[in-house]
Amino acid sequence: MREVAVIGTGMTKFGELWDSPLRDLYAEAVADCLKDAGVKRDQIQSAWIGCMTSGLFNGQEHLASILTDYAGLSGIAATRVESACASGGAAFRAGWLEVASGASDFVLAGGVEKMNDGADATYCLSTAADQEYEVYHGVTFPGLYAMIAKAHMHKHGTTREDLAAVAVKNHKHGARNPRAQFPTEITMDTVLNAVTVSTPLGLFDCSPVSDGAATVLLAPVEVAEDLGRPYVTVKGSGHATDSIALHDRSDLASIPVVKKAAEKAYAMAGVGPKDIDVVEVHDCFTIAELVCLEELGFFEPGQAAAATKAGTTALGGDLPVNTSGGLKSKGHPVGATGIAQIIEIVEQLTGRAEGRQVEGAKIGLAQNMGGSGGSSTVHILEVS
Amino acid sequence: MREVAVIGTGMTKFGELWDSPLRDLYAEAVADCLKDAGVKRDQIQSAWIGCMTSGLFNGQEHLASILTDYAGLSGIAATRVESACASGGAAFRAGWLEVASGASDFVLAGGVEKMNDGADATYCLSTAADQEYEVYHGVTFPGLYAMIAKAHMHKHGTTREDLAAVAVKNHKHGARNPRAQFPTEITMDTVLNAVTVSTPLGLFDCSPVSDGAATVLLAPVEVAEDLGRPYVTVKGSGHATDSIALHDRSDLASIPVVKKAAEKAYAMAGVGPKDIDVVEVHDCFTIAELVCLEELGFFEPGQAAAATKAGTTALGGDLPVNTSGGLKSKGHPVGATGIAQIIEIVEQLTGRAEGRQVEGAKIGLAQNMGGSGGSSTVHILEVS
Repeated sequence: MREVAVIGTGMTKFGELWDSPLRDLYAEAVADCLKDAGVKRDQIQSAWIGCMTSGLFNGQEHLASILTDYAGLSGIAATRVESACASGGAAFRAGWLEVASGASDFVLAGGVEKMNDGADATYCLSTAADQEYEVYHGVTFPGLYAMIAKAHMHKHGTTREDLAAVAVKNHKHGARNPRAQFPTEITMDTVLNAVTVSTPLGLFDCSPVSDGAATVLLAPVEVAEDLGRPYVTVKGSGHATDSIALHDRSDLASIPVVKKAAEKAYAMAGVGPKDIDVVEVHDCFTIAELVCLEELGFFEPGQAAAATKAGTTALGGDLPVNTSGGLKSKGHPVGATGIAQIIEIVEQLTGRAEGRQVEGAKIGLAQNMGGSGGSSTVHILEVS
Repeated sequence: MREVAVIGTGMTKFGELWDSPLRDLYAEAVADCLKDAGVKRDQIQSAWIGCMTSGLFNGQEHLASILTDYAGLSGIAATRVESACASGGAAFRAGWLEVASGASDFVLAGGVEKMNDGADATYCLSTAADQEYEVYHGVTFPGLYAMIAKAHMHKHGTTREDLAAVAVKNHKHGARNPRAQFPTEITMDTVLNAVTVSTPLGLFDCSPVSDGAATVLLAPVEVAEDLGRPYVTVKGSGHATDSIALHDRSDLASIPVVKKAAEKAYAMAGVGPKDIDVVEVHDCFTIAELVCLEELGFFEPGQAAAATKAGTTALGGDLPVNTSGGLKSKGHPVGATGIAQIIEIVEQLTGRAEGRQVEGAKIGLAQNMGGSGGSSTVHILEVS
């Protein structure tokens, strides 16, 4: 397999972007990415685009064809991939495989979601769960993660304040990210006194409904070297699935798919949790950040909350987590999230995370998740 | 790049399968495929699943997670790919890239669509066109292909009877395929006297609304050799895109994306149209078969109709086309179609196409198309 580099990044601001249609969002991210990489459109051979449900949100399938056409790339091989909220991570993995195989040298791996377009977002997102055995009975995504939170509280003594501390930290980080949807610091009181969405989760425990697109450009390391610009190398890629439905899991206080994906990525990269300098995890709800950090091996089960309150996972701590603001503050256009996480890690490793830079970061990890743990990708990136 | 073999095939019957939910269809195809290959579930590392719009048809996204779980494969890397009706071809290409890269040895490439589930199929399928500039103005897929047919008639003198001859031929083939939705021979009179769907296309010029699933198992050629069972080798893979919307094309009597994808596949395989023994093309409408055969280089523009009437493309002719019955007779569960085409070619090349065998076939080609030509894949397979 060829070693693969990320040689360019591009993304839109995340937010309620009522003036930007789906196709414009992707085109803007591509333009931003190609400018960053110094690569021309006619050099691009292929694009993989993560998107969860443009059919339901926007009435538009055949997505890779229309998006690459509007991005000025018509003619290339272009494929949409879907793994619910892990669609971006899955697109990154697909692009990595194409470059690694030797089939193509310049491959875009991107993601997009236009969630504010008139559709019922709660219904659209519910299609990431098991329709026949979960959704038809009334459960929503805040409800599913609330069950995980309750189980975690029961098993590990996690408190309402532990969850709130994740939101406060991520908003503090996001306030330093100009592309964040909510770049605003918040207090514990704000989180604890917010309206309840699904007990124990309140409004500030939940990531928002967002529009946005992100893409990176992949190339073989030898091509990246020739270009003479900063790049990072993909050292590990892990992808795993688990049952979509919570009723098929033996322990609701864990999300085993994250551990499975991480084990594959660590093994391939030849590193472990202790080697990682900066992390982006899938904090679609505050509880998810705690459980994912435990599944990734950074903390023992039940210990991520104490680490969060001690400042370990904050900027300036030993293991800064979600320096981008995470899904909570940066926003969560579901198909774009996995790529935006990769972009944050690339910016950190190449010293371009202005205002939120983790000094000396050499190895970073990005973990993207689908549904309530039905799928997950883990990617480990390193700068030379 | 490693050379990749197809070492097993599995598919359901195509049809209105009201008793079979989406997840059961895929599970049945996987069971059939693994039995055919003599490979066990725990050897499978990854699955790619083509599906156009399970979100709209079935209210179910996160598709690869739920389908692999129900197929007894939970834990593996599993990703859905979408390129409208070319989703199956795109899934095959993704699986091929993964095995070619060296990342995995046993990879399933499949497709599924459950179109009879209560949703409005005409609306669901329209999302393969440009929603904002085509669909909102009332066009449907029969309407789009009717425009292509009218342009072809105007430019090349193609007649209503020329179109009907495609349907008659494909039903004659499909009558020999036990998995076909409509395994029934029809006459020219039946086609010509059927109710009009969109002038000049009548009911028998249109592929049906179908349920079904298909999957193949891919492995490196050296692994296939060790297994000691019949296999075919992937010699060429081409994938291209074009504008979704017809108004962006310069000539409606052609579908340029097919030529682009074919050029890539022929170049990679080191063969040309004259070397191909058996062909599956994307006859979603009768006109599509004629145009695709011309774009693939088998006939000059405007000449495929005469060849069809002369019997060249029928079983027993010089270039048998759609021996499976094609989309018209076999059925067209859109996400599964691209894989079902590959399966027909594999069965032909390995001498297992009982009742419709093309004697001595060594090299076959499968062409899958998205929308009205917004994307296409072309794969060339060879038996040693």
